[in-house]
Amino acid sequence: MEFDFERMGAPERYKLLLATVLPRPIAWVTTRDAAGAINAAPFSFFNVFGSDPATVGIGIGSKEPAEPKDTRANIRGNEQFVVNLVPFALAEQMRVTSIAFPRGVEELKEAELSLAPSIRVGVPRIADAPVSMECTFMQEIALGSFSLVLGRILMVHVKDEAVTNAARQHVDAEKLDLIGRMEGGWYTRTRDRFEMPAIALEDWKEKP
Amino acid sequence: MEFDFERMGAPERYKLLLATVLPRPIAWVTTRDAAGAINAAPFSFFNVFGSDPATVGIGIGSKEPAEPKDTRANIRGNEQFVVNLVPFALAEQMRVTSIAFPRGVEELKEAELSLAPSIRVGVPRIADAPVSMECTFMQEIALGSFSLVLGRILMVHVKDEAVTNAARQHVDAEKLDLIGRMEGGWYTRTRDRFEMPAIALEDWKEKP
Repeated sequence: MEFDFERMGAPERYKLLLATVLPRPIAWVTTRDAAGAINAAPFSFFNVFGSDPATVGIGIGSKEPAEPKDTRANIRGNEQFVVNLVPFALAEQMRVTSIAFPRGVEELKEAELSLAPSIRVGVPRIADAPVSMECTFMQEIALGSFSLVLGRILMVHVKDEAVTNAARQHVDAEKLDLIGRMEGGWYTRTRDRFEMPAIALEDWKEKP
Repeated sequence: MEFDFERMGAPERYKLLLATVLPRPIAWVTTRDAAGAINAAPFSFFNVFGSDPATVGIGIGSKEPAEPKDTRANIRGNEQFVVNLVPFALAEQMRVTSIAFPRGVEELKEAELSLAPSIRVGVPRIADAPVSMECTFMQEIALGSFSLVLGRILMVHVKDEAVTNAARQHVDAEKLDLIGRMEGGWYTRTRDRFEMPAIALEDWKEKP
């Protein structure tokens, strides 16, 4: 079946993209507003894009036309943020931080989440997140009511139990137990895994 | 444990990002080269970022310094590409298309994959992919040896059996059976799901 995006409205395109581009990793972004309050909100238009500079990208929408979501406004304000990743154990807390609270309500208090200090940026990380990435703002690309915000990763925190060999950057994904975003109100865990190592060109040439 | 990205080399940063930003959706990108040959290759530095314009972003690396991977060179050449998504049933074929074949070898023939014509672009899609998105090039953002390539989605194909309500953009994710990229040679299926609908502000206020 074909969906002609040039003839559909933006809300309809948005729904179809949410339902088909799967599974999406979740950036649970902490930022600081001008008054010092810490904001946390999850975004699944998110990924990493390169390693030199190490770059994250997050598509962040608007509350109303010409009124960016708090996360985007805060990143513009002080050019710092932390991308925390979401394990199954914190799914319910993440859900609470996605409520459309009025400005002034601290999502992290509502969700009873603890913060831990960052090293390179003035925005704290979520203490129990198994991975947190301290970032500085690089650039913002306007995409209608969304903006793609790019950040440079300065420092990555990984919980000790999940690091199997720090010198080789080996991490045990089972211990991270991250969740991915699916369509509608659905999420996926990452335990249903299978291994399929890359094939070397030489091995392919020698296949029977 | 802290990983100080400003003191690590790019290959080490790359390995840690691959092992921690999970699960990543996979763009199986078809492009056409100047001689007309069709190229296919998978990339997991990928996501959608907005709906107006409907925008995909793909981080694509280089084969050698100053020599972009074929996918990136082809997109530069004619400004068209198709992002196909990968179901479990095509995992092995995707793996074959990720082999570092020399220029001139057609990955799709090696993997015995069939193509189907696109409607808005001159690059075909992978016939058995459950979702294919026809795209035109928007812009490229240089990130060292990587580039973040942004494309505008003109048309989305979703396999008929997976569309449960076309007018409402409802898609059955179980029938898509997409896989996500994990660390090293690992992938995850998306059957291990759980539902957690968003909480309305009014409902949260009324909680006991």
